[in-house]
Amino acid sequence: MTTPDTIAPVVPARSAVRPLGLDAVRLTGGFWGERERLARDAIIPHAEHWEERTGWLANFDAVAAGTVAQTCQGREFSDSEIYKLLEAMAWQLGREPDAGLESRFAAIVARVSAAQQPDGYLSTMFGNPGQDPRWSQLEWGHELYCLGHLFQAAVARVRSGHRDELVAVAVRAADHVCEVFAPGAHPGICGHPEIEVGLAELGRALGERRYLDQAREFVERRGHQVLPDIEFGREYYQDDIPVRDATVLRGHAVRALYLSAGALDVADEFADTELADAVRRAYDRTLERRTYLTGGMGSHHQDEAFGEDFELPADRAYCETCAGIGSVMTAWRLLLGTGDLRYGDIIERTLYNVVAVSPRADGRAFFYTNPLQQRVAGEPVGADDISRRARAQLRAPWFEVSCCPTNVARTLSQLAAYVAVMDEHGVSIVQYADADIRAFLPEGPMVLQTRTAYPHDGRVTITVVDAPAEAELRLRLPAWASGATVLRDGAESEVSVDAIRDGMLRLSHLAVGEAVVLTLPIAPRLTHPDPRIDAVRGSVAVEAGPLVLCAESVDIGGADVADLVIDVTAPLEHTEGGVRARGRLRPAASNGWPYRGDVDAVAEAVKIPLVPYYTWARRGPGTMRIWLPTS
Amino acid sequence: MTTPDTIAPVVPARSAVRPLGLDAVRLTGGFWGERERLARDAIIPHAEHWEERTGWLANFDAVAAGTVAQTCQGREFSDSEIYKLLEAMAWQLGREPDAGLESRFAAIVARVSAAQQPDGYLSTMFGNPGQDPRWSQLEWGHELYCLGHLFQAAVARVRSGHRDELVAVAVRAADHVCEVFAPGAHPGICGHPEIEVGLAELGRALGERRYLDQAREFVERRGHQVLPDIEFGREYYQDDIPVRDATVLRGHAVRALYLSAGALDVADEFADTELADAVRRAYDRTLERRTYLTGGMGSHHQDEAFGEDFELPADRAYCETCAGIGSVMTAWRLLLGTGDLRYGDIIERTLYNVVAVSPRADGRAFFYTNPLQQRVAGEPVGADDISRRARAQLRAPWFEVSCCPTNVARTLSQLAAYVAVMDEHGVSIVQYADADIRAFLPEGPMVLQTRTAYPHDGRVTITVVDAPAEAELRLRLPAWASGATVLRDGAESEVSVDAIRDGMLRLSHLAVGEAVVLTLPIAPRLTHPDPRIDAVRGSVAVEAGPLVLCAESVDIGGADVADLVIDVTAPLEHTEGGVRARGRLRPAASNGWPYRGDVDAVAEAVKIPLVPYYTWARRGPGTMRIWLPTS
Repeated sequence: MTTPDTIAPVVPARSAVRPLGLDAVRLTGGFWGERERLARDAIIPHAEHWEERTGWLANFDAVAAGTVAQTCQGREFSDSEIYKLLEAMAWQLGREPDAGLESRFAAIVARVSAAQQPDGYLSTMFGNPGQDPRWSQLEWGHELYCLGHLFQAAVARVRSGHRDELVAVAVRAADHVCEVFAPGAHPGICGHPEIEVGLAELGRALGERRYLDQAREFVERRGHQVLPDIEFGREYYQDDIPVRDATVLRGHAVRALYLSAGALDVADEFADTELADAVRRAYDRTLERRTYLTGGMGSHHQDEAFGEDFELPADRAYCETCAGIGSVMTAWRLLLGTGDLRYGDIIERTLYNVVAVSPRADGRAFFYTNPLQQRVAGEPVGADDISRRARAQLRAPWFEVSCCPTNVARTLSQLAAYVAVMDEHGVSIVQYADADIRAFLPEGPMVLQTRTAYPHDGRVTITVVDAPAEAELRLRLPAWASGATVLRDGAESEVSVDAIRDGMLRLSHLAVGEAVVLTLPIAPRLTHPDPRIDAVRGSVAVEAGPLVLCAESVDIGGADVADLVIDVTAPLEHTEGGVRARGRLRPAASNGWPYRGDVDAVAEAVKIPLVPYYTWARRGPGTMRIWLPTS
Repeated sequence: MTTPDTIAPVVPARSAVRPLGLDAVRLTGGFWGERERLARDAIIPHAEHWEERTGWLANFDAVAAGTVAQTCQGREFSDSEIYKLLEAMAWQLGREPDAGLESRFAAIVARVSAAQQPDGYLSTMFGNPGQDPRWSQLEWGHELYCLGHLFQAAVARVRSGHRDELVAVAVRAADHVCEVFAPGAHPGICGHPEIEVGLAELGRALGERRYLDQAREFVERRGHQVLPDIEFGREYYQDDIPVRDATVLRGHAVRALYLSAGALDVADEFADTELADAVRRAYDRTLERRTYLTGGMGSHHQDEAFGEDFELPADRAYCETCAGIGSVMTAWRLLLGTGDLRYGDIIERTLYNVVAVSPRADGRAFFYTNPLQQRVAGEPVGADDISRRARAQLRAPWFEVSCCPTNVARTLSQLAAYVAVMDEHGVSIVQYADADIRAFLPEGPMVLQTRTAYPHDGRVTITVVDAPAEAELRLRLPAWASGATVLRDGAESEVSVDAIRDGMLRLSHLAVGEAVVLTLPIAPRLTHPDPRIDAVRGSVAVEAGPLVLCAESVDIGGADVADLVIDVTAPLEHTEGGVRARGRLRPAASNGWPYRGDVDAVAEAVKIPLVPYYTWARRGPGTMRIWLPTS
């Protein structure tokens, strides 16, 4: 074990602000602390169980035994699920030693290691006797994609101070990739971006310039029609336009977002501001025109892709959980690179309203897609069922394409890294959670304790346990937080809209022992969509703090939420466990041809309970909607 | 040549009203007459050219030569395109002899015939040396589907008085199918319904009970999980629920509609009112909840399928041209079976706003999907390009899956059969077109001439050339036609809404030589959607007679139609070639996060020209929308 690096998923050589790792920020409880533990105690063991049960882990044993062509289970990306599980385990071990978990981790690593070829190649789906040759189907084969996830897992180990077998496996594989795909050698790229971010991060973590060069090479190759044209067009895998020329994210959402993250890593390491600016512009435009209220991305089921600008149907929202994670990956890199805390807004929104939606409260079932409207009650899924991703259903234990559960596991296991950042002048709190924070500024340590019931309560108490005299404490203020108050030394000051323009509040002259009380205005509020979003015209959503709320049929006596109309003039009331709006329930009477010269409007008054979207479908099948018609 | 039967696509043994064939109704010009000729003069030769060019026709030669496994082109349903082309030719020849066309027809038939196996089996994709065995992939193989289209082509020949080689090929194939799939023999069904309607119609045309029995057998088998479960579920091919138990159409739209047509044929022939009622109920509910304003059906690109109730997005409307044709097939059978002329409304709507939309004015390019909103200008398609169906593009000459061009060809070639029906008391005019109509009532011939510029003019003049004294003339009155007037013998009478309840106006005491002038109110009108259709809430459409109108960017100086707002209080003005609404153009200025606490509304007044939807995209790429926001 070596001295730990910053134990965090993204550690750029240079950036506007620096991440604080899992050793510097400890979640002590609350919304995110509970989820960090849920990943360790439930989701990780659940994924281990299913990876064993489906035979995806045994594929590695079969490679070692030379029998994999006969017994291979799963799909061309199944190896990546093992690597994402290892990454999740590695972050958990990085934040807190656990001998039992360490030995389970090592056992899986040994099986993976045994499947590696002498030259470093590693795949259970290609290149073994009786299988298709190595690199023979780059557009759909996912070989490099899988290795990218292997490298991210190894990065978690390196940054936690380990140079173990997993790191050795990753180094052998990365060296092999750099040799095979060197400039002038194999000119290909992977149909699913991920190798870029994996190589770049591994290069950073190990100080291996060659990996960074290869990551850059892969980023630069893409967009020049390297891959074949397919049914969905080359934009499906972002091979239509070079990253530095693209103006918006398009095609398969997870692919587009992983590529964006990888391109930002490359841009940061090579001080390529043109590339960084291109990704930022494309991502910002995507936020403006191709993002759901929840932060979810991806409007098409057909190709799991972004739609056109403002094509954001609530019912057919794909909003894959993994796309939400890809968006967090990208936004976090932009926050570090620019120092603009406003990227914390989309991270917060996405964590609460996409990532947190996926796992069931017990961590043993997951949503793959996260629509904003459920028209028909979903089908319950049995604890032993492997689900298809596109079906209308409740959370499911595992999927034929099971990218989301392990992605949730690794993301929840690294949550503490997203709470705060630092620079030489002080610390910025990006997400509000129960946390102990310790940053080493040039002038000395800055130690903070944040305590809050956020997002269910707007009050956050930040105790300055220690701080150099000149240190600055910055608090991210979400765009909706106009009217927030800060209490210091008995003097309360209100934060105006102007102060939120740059997304943060700066506090200086900190006294050791001082308690700063930030109160964010989490009273429920009405939100209107851009009029160009046809799918939700004439509707409003209700948000409370960072939470998007929704109506569920179970709360209106089993009536269909399709028949609800909200009265926007009535006050939104707080209730125990939620919010209550007023409105009407239109009887779903009318029959016949549904397009008429007149409109009728008979309806009975109802109260409309609204609950946080992340809790939806916890109480069994039903209909649900976030956007409520106003007339 | 034998005495022609009724030269029409559906001739039930018993029905409430009887069809009038292509010999009894002659289109003399006008909207539909032009399209009937367009099919003969442009679309049919175009399809011949492409079927030769793609090698789909040569597949039959290769089967005869024993080389097809090496040279086979196209997809598993390509044979059906040849059969649909033959059907189109056969209807054209049935309505009017044409020696040149007859010889082109015979040449294709000879090539098809040469590929038939001695036992009657016929396919270019299966069962030949080097190919997969016969019937080995019923769920995706389309073997029976293709034969269903062969049978429909043969039906057109039989009803036109021919017992030629095509009929002989069809009989051999049908006998073979009846043997292989007899009760107790192979228990399978085809993944794509069509064999049902083909066998039933062939059985009717030839008086062959065995084919009808087999059609019934196939209808009854479906819905009992005969086919494997697939990614989209068994509802994709209607194998989830038996036809007589289903309450709504679901799954792949063309499959659902072809099955409905076949089931109605079976129900009619076996006097199975329970089955007929089940299909009617399911279709009626589909009209109420799963049909676009255009009559288009199918909301999903992913599986070309119906969505849930009221899931009708304008931009992602799939509305496959072939689904429109399937809907016409189903509605026409319901009209014949029930005598309810109101099914003529959906036929009319679908013909004008789905089927007529597909072909370009020159008949050499086609829309496959018919969305109600185009967000980005479609890509022009070269005259030599084979297109993918799902891409945003202008009309294309041919497709990899090219079902629509030949389906349009056969439908436009049989249009005259949909104009009028008869029973022993008289004639009902179902569609208004320039036509000469001759029906043989028990009391004597009833001869009518209809002349009109409909749908561009509401006036239809029906001259009673001959009629028995007691004969009744019935005129279908569309649901929107309240305020229509009828002028007889100098006395004009207005038709009230009540009179439209049963969808028709009955006229008796006809005088020979009398001219009845029906004036339908085609002034443009505003149409509101059912409030449960979320995708178009807060919008209206403008219709004029049977035509759905749309706004195109080319008519508003290239501005994006996404920015239009219609003023519903302003009058709709007639202009040369169209209609003009008034409204505002919202500047597409706002940037940043598109969900806000307030709404701004700055807009400049504009006039909004509206054109018939079937003409859209004739003037090059642009944006388009049918539903216009009201605020």
